[in-house]
Amino acid sequence: MEDTHVTAPTQFVEVDEMKFAYRRFGRQTGIPLLFLQHFRGGMDHWDPAVTDGFGGDRPVLLFDNAGVAGSSGETPSTIEAMAEHAAAFVGALGLSEVDVLGFSIGGYVSQTLALRYPSLVRRLILVGTGPRGGDPSHDPKSAEYAASTDPTTGESGLEAFLYLFFRPSEPSQAAGRAFWERRHRRTKDVDPPSSPQTMAAQSAAAAEWRQIRGERFSEIKAISQPTLVVNGHHDVLIPTSSSYILSQHIPRAQLIIYPDSGHGALFQFPELFVTHGRMFLEGSL
Amino acid sequence: MEDTHVTAPTQFVEVDEMKFAYRRFGRQTGIPLLFLQHFRGGMDHWDPAVTDGFGGDRPVLLFDNAGVAGSSGETPSTIEAMAEHAAAFVGALGLSEVDVLGFSIGGYVSQTLALRYPSLVRRLILVGTGPRGGDPSHDPKSAEYAASTDPTTGESGLEAFLYLFFRPSEPSQAAGRAFWERRHRRTKDVDPPSSPQTMAAQSAAAAEWRQIRGERFSEIKAISQPTLVVNGHHDVLIPTSSSYILSQHIPRAQLIIYPDSGHGALFQFPELFVTHGRMFLEGSL
Repeated sequence: MEDTHVTAPTQFVEVDEMKFAYRRFGRQTGIPLLFLQHFRGGMDHWDPAVTDGFGGDRPVLLFDNAGVAGSSGETPSTIEAMAEHAAAFVGALGLSEVDVLGFSIGGYVSQTLALRYPSLVRRLILVGTGPRGGDPSHDPKSAEYAASTDPTTGESGLEAFLYLFFRPSEPSQAAGRAFWERRHRRTKDVDPPSSPQTMAAQSAAAAEWRQIRGERFSEIKAISQPTLVVNGHHDVLIPTSSSYILSQHIPRAQLIIYPDSGHGALFQFPELFVTHGRMFLEGSL
Repeated sequence: MEDTHVTAPTQFVEVDEMKFAYRRFGRQTGIPLLFLQHFRGGMDHWDPAVTDGFGGDRPVLLFDNAGVAGSSGETPSTIEAMAEHAAAFVGALGLSEVDVLGFSIGGYVSQTLALRYPSLVRRLILVGTGPRGGDPSHDPKSAEYAASTDPTTGESGLEAFLYLFFRPSEPSQAAGRAFWERRHRRTKDVDPPSSPQTMAAQSAAAAEWRQIRGERFSEIKAISQPTLVVNGHHDVLIPTSSSYILSQHIPRAQLIIYPDSGHGALFQFPELFVTHGRMFLEGSL
């Protein structure tokens, strides 16, 4: 039987004295889909409905970047260094081509990886993310919630997730609670929480990413990969307008925005998102 | 055998001494999908790949609104009056519920129809269109091309279509020529071209639609139907930002924007558009 999100064993691969924690599952052949996670998140913060959904017809690869959760080393404080670590991890597995799904800060890393390693990245899915120099969130509560930590788990709590990733409507909140249940189905061989060092370094990297460098939004015009940009209608962390901007500047970008949803739209509508994502990965656009 | 875009006979239904030309084809049962056409366009200006694509699992209903192409009567000079005519036409066929696909000025009519007849319209697909009071096009050539008429046919010519509906890239232009070929497959029982009266009245209605009424974009917040908004990356006729605005203000809107395409994105990627559209019509969002 093939491994799934819940059953895939955590494995390790060593590069430059860093041990990267990873899990590989889904179909055994095909171009793997590499998942790059959000702020503070590790392998256990993905939605099994999404990862196993994509795993139905391709290998799925989760990993913790340097210093994050189960990986050793120090989390660097620039997106560029994170992209270099991701490339080193992919190289250590002996893979010459991957598709990449980057979520939030993982979307920043994905854009940088696609630009620096154009032949390594075949297709790109960018979810709940934005370009370098994008507009900051003006949501009054999001920064506080994003930094909050549940004292018993050392992780973000349900309340923070429901606020940051979902909308106040009852359907969106219910979808958020259903996601939370799925997210906790894996109870053995789980990641440790990310450290304060990771949190500080990722915050610094995200702040640096907000700085404009040269002509605004010019960098992403060089992303040559077919790209699917996805977000919810109202993202309190990275404004939804950032997704529109990504799609207007990445030459081969397709944009999908879902109603009554936010940063976590991929977790609110996992089946629809996976269907759209598979159509994109297998399509000709 | 079921009728198709090419074989469906033109029929007529009379309301208030106006004869509406229409064609019905595709599956015989199910909720019909009513197509509302662009500036000057009649039933022959749709893409058979789109109409027959949707017809695979639902009835498809094309018609010429009052005064347009094969219909009698005078084309009114407001979008509201056009929506009233469309409602009268649907009523005359004895239909109590339809899905509506509105393209360009047909999208204006669709929004108005959905607002005025909320129980008649189940789901809405808005393509290459914008809200009341939306930003005008700043494209220097689009107005001239839109008004140009081929002296032999009395219709817009290929050059105008390729400019207005597609992008300058070779793949987009090639898709435009392929669309043009498909569009002319029906050679018998075709529509006459629209009259100068229709052109003038539709121009006046579109100009009136650009006026802001009350709080900008507030009207469409009352559209209660699930709505799919679709456009190409760079629409020279109705700026693509208008599609983003529609999706931000219609409460249950989903947005899809395709790369390297314009106003005619639905004709550039007919299979993908039909697949996305069918998923939407049959979906739960």
